[in-house]
Amino acid sequence: MKATDAGLRGEQVEGRRAVLELLRAQRRPVRTVHLSRTVERDAVVDEIVERAGGRLHLVAPERLASMARSDAHQGVVATAGPLPSVDVDVLLDGSDAFLVALDGVTDPRNLGAVLRCAETAGATGVVLPRHRSARVTPAVTKAAAGAIEYLPIASVAGIPAMLDRASRKGVWSVGLDEDGSQSLFDLNLTDQPIVLVLGAEGRGLARLTRDRCDVLAHIPMRGRVASLNVAAAAALACHEVARHRSV
Amino acid sequence: MKATDAGLRGEQVEGRRAVLELLRAQRRPVRTVHLSRTVERDAVVDEIVERAGGRLHLVAPERLASMARSDAHQGVVATAGPLPSVDVDVLLDGSDAFLVALDGVTDPRNLGAVLRCAETAGATGVVLPRHRSARVTPAVTKAAAGAIEYLPIASVAGIPAMLDRASRKGVWSVGLDEDGSQSLFDLNLTDQPIVLVLGAEGRGLARLTRDRCDVLAHIPMRGRVASLNVAAAAALACHEVARHRSV
Repeated sequence: MKATDAGLRGEQVEGRRAVLELLRAQRRPVRTVHLSRTVERDAVVDEIVERAGGRLHLVAPERLASMARSDAHQGVVATAGPLPSVDVDVLLDGSDAFLVALDGVTDPRNLGAVLRCAETAGATGVVLPRHRSARVTPAVTKAAAGAIEYLPIASVAGIPAMLDRASRKGVWSVGLDEDGSQSLFDLNLTDQPIVLVLGAEGRGLARLTRDRCDVLAHIPMRGRVASLNVAAAAALACHEVARHRSV
Repeated sequence: MKATDAGLRGEQVEGRRAVLELLRAQRRPVRTVHLSRTVERDAVVDEIVERAGGRLHLVAPERLASMARSDAHQGVVATAGPLPSVDVDVLLDGSDAFLVALDGVTDPRNLGAVLRCAETAGATGVVLPRHRSARVTPAVTKAAAGAIEYLPIASVAGIPAMLDRASRKGVWSVGLDEDGSQSLFDLNLTDQPIVLVLGAEGRGLARLTRDRCDVLAHIPMRGRVASLNVAAAAALACHEVARHRSV
């Protein structure tokens, strides 16, 4: 995994599950783990304390609240080395490539939730554009619940150019779009390398991105509200791929 | 639909899509629609302006920001009559009942996202406990993106007692649980009346609730992070029911 200095960030990690997986994964140096003195002890907190060792700092809850940047730190904030980013070609060249590309997802909680979905579905990597995307802020680390410690992330100049590269390498691209001609659930998702492409909240996929996808798929809707948020769409699409791969 | 005074709230509605659906649905009285003077105009905003008519107030962005209670109001805040709640027996007695019961979901964005998923999947109603649940706050209205205007919601004293009633009425209950014995994707979800039961963030289903479910199902995980958040789990479970009902 070739690390490049693409500035993914991710140095401040918040929330119990996120900090626990940071310590378990041992993929990047952990500098400090701050724990509120009033935090409710459970198995997760006990394991954090044990793994943090001398890096643990017990602090007053007000001190912890002033350090935290997300609104749901759960009494635990850690600092670590920045997240390494990987070369997108390494991800595209994987024989079992199952990538998720995000085209302009700017809401931190949505970004974190999509990363979590992708990891639980067995995705082999995520592709984020350097511009028009949320960085891995503390709120993203919280919502990702540890997924960022295991999921390789590539940072690229633009999603359309990445899709051109994917196409040349035989990676099939599926864009999620309300007006897509095929149902997500009718796609023939066999074991070929695949990249799922998800668009921004509200606007969906950019035109240039849409034009580059091999197929555009919609999620069948049965209610009056016309669309799902990007995290819910990601859950359905990622786990659809997982279902086809697990049989 | 029998309205009871269960205090679901929902009087302040924030965000473009949520306010648009409030005006379209015409299910409850809309008192005011406040729009920021600097809001970016698009088809959604144009339709809000047209439907709001004399109830529209154009205000300075600072004024709107001070009225808003969610962090993503998108320049639109409306006030309306409270959300009506319905009798849970009306929901349970539906021949095509497809209900979603939430056992202690306290995060407003998660609650809103689950309501949105349920509506898009064609759920016929949602059941919330009067205690141990988020009310329909402005942040919930934003995340639900209009789903609350169409989705009947019942408020009950407790989920375990509701599941007893469901059982007596022949409604099959499926609880989502990491340790569930069956895969969600292997369930025989035919056209019988069904209630999906989702637990709180972190803790999952309460023991009393778990004991009352007819079956406990897990979502197959392929990564290192052991669980999905409740909104992603809801997306998968609700749309799994929708898939079986659409064939």
